[in-house]
Amino acid sequence: MGALRLYDYLESGNGYKVRLLLTQLGLPFERVEVDILQGQTRTPAFLALNPNGRIPVLRLEDGTHLAESNAIQWYLAEGTRYLPEDRRGRAEVLRWMFFEQYSHEPFIAVLRFWSFAGTLADRPPAEIEAKRAAGHAALAVLERRLADAPFLVGDRYGIADIALFAYTHVAGEGGFDLAPYPGVLAWIDRVRAQPDHVAIDAPTGVAVDLDEAGL
Amino acid sequence: MGALRLYDYLESGNGYKVRLLLTQLGLPFERVEVDILQGQTRTPAFLALNPNGRIPVLRLEDGTHLAESNAIQWYLAEGTRYLPEDRRGRAEVLRWMFFEQYSHEPFIAVLRFWSFAGTLADRPPAEIEAKRAAGHAALAVLERRLADAPFLVGDRYGIADIALFAYTHVAGEGGFDLAPYPGVLAWIDRVRAQPDHVAIDAPTGVAVDLDEAGL
Repeated sequence: MGALRLYDYLESGNGYKVRLLLTQLGLPFERVEVDILQGQTRTPAFLALNPNGRIPVLRLEDGTHLAESNAIQWYLAEGTRYLPEDRRGRAEVLRWMFFEQYSHEPFIAVLRFWSFAGTLADRPPAEIEAKRAAGHAALAVLERRLADAPFLVGDRYGIADIALFAYTHVAGEGGFDLAPYPGVLAWIDRVRAQPDHVAIDAPTGVAVDLDEAGL
Repeated sequence: MGALRLYDYLESGNGYKVRLLLTQLGLPFERVEVDILQGQTRTPAFLALNPNGRIPVLRLEDGTHLAESNAIQWYLAEGTRYLPEDRRGRAEVLRWMFFEQYSHEPFIAVLRFWSFAGTLADRPPAEIEAKRAAGHAALAVLERRLADAPFLVGDRYGIADIALFAYTHVAGEGGFDLAPYPGVLAWIDRVRAQPDHVAIDAPTGVAVDLDEAGL
């Protein structure tokens, strides 16, 4: 069986979800930094791993490649404390993970990415304003749950929390003020206090360079 | 145990996913048509069912409400022939369902919705063009899989196919020409040929009106 290998980008919250979970599960893994700003996810070699041209991708023990951060999380968390066993709880984990990809990430992560990539000023103000409003709507949905619940599903930390934490805790880097969301802020502290937590900018895993990875 | 009740909107591909699966599973259900164009998903009564203000929502047997079309599909398909039993296959189903919500629906479904709602002409041409390009990129990813595979995961029809079929087969209503994607077209025919298939505009289920549903 081969080593787990994560194709990743350090600033990516989607990559961070997998990095954090692998670390909390105590699973050793290799990490390949792929520079998405330099087109390294759009080369033929990368597209053979994920035709959708995005990180994260995880090479599994059997040598196959799995794409989509939340699908990878589900795969890794199966049978562990990070995913409930009951059918209703599992469905609620997916509810939050699909919410994250459809109603949260495209606004909160994208404004952060544009700030980071230096392209924010090139965008039409109406587009930025629409993303800002949609991002706040997503934060309000999170607040409604977290105002009186410790975690997103049941009373235990798990992959739904990791999925939403990834971009929420750095929302400020995209200009979102979290002060109106005290439940969210308290939850961020609870997530950070979990055993084996690592920060988004911590390059965990064993570094493998692009050449070595054949990319 | 109460009846399954689907809060739905007939033109919605996201609602259709659940409608189609319920029908193919042979599960009786009530259906409440909620007019998203009239703000009926943004009332306090609806937001109590789904704080994110979107259909579909399924009221389960225990009276709780589950949001997000693909989470609902997963819940319903668990233990049936529409979801594989092996860990790798299940992860691949999620991979396609997250691809659908992040890389497919926001482009292919949204252009259809704008056409349908009559707001396409109000949008900046650059925004439409960007969504058009991203939609074709998603179709190309589907084609790459379906050019030589009968279904999205393994060799059996399941909820990943339903998730992607919902908006792909009506992509033409948003101005997408599917002729360059012969594998996708053949797959559409295979999906339509499945037992108990129903069309997107077939109001299956037992109609319950908004008042009766307390909305």
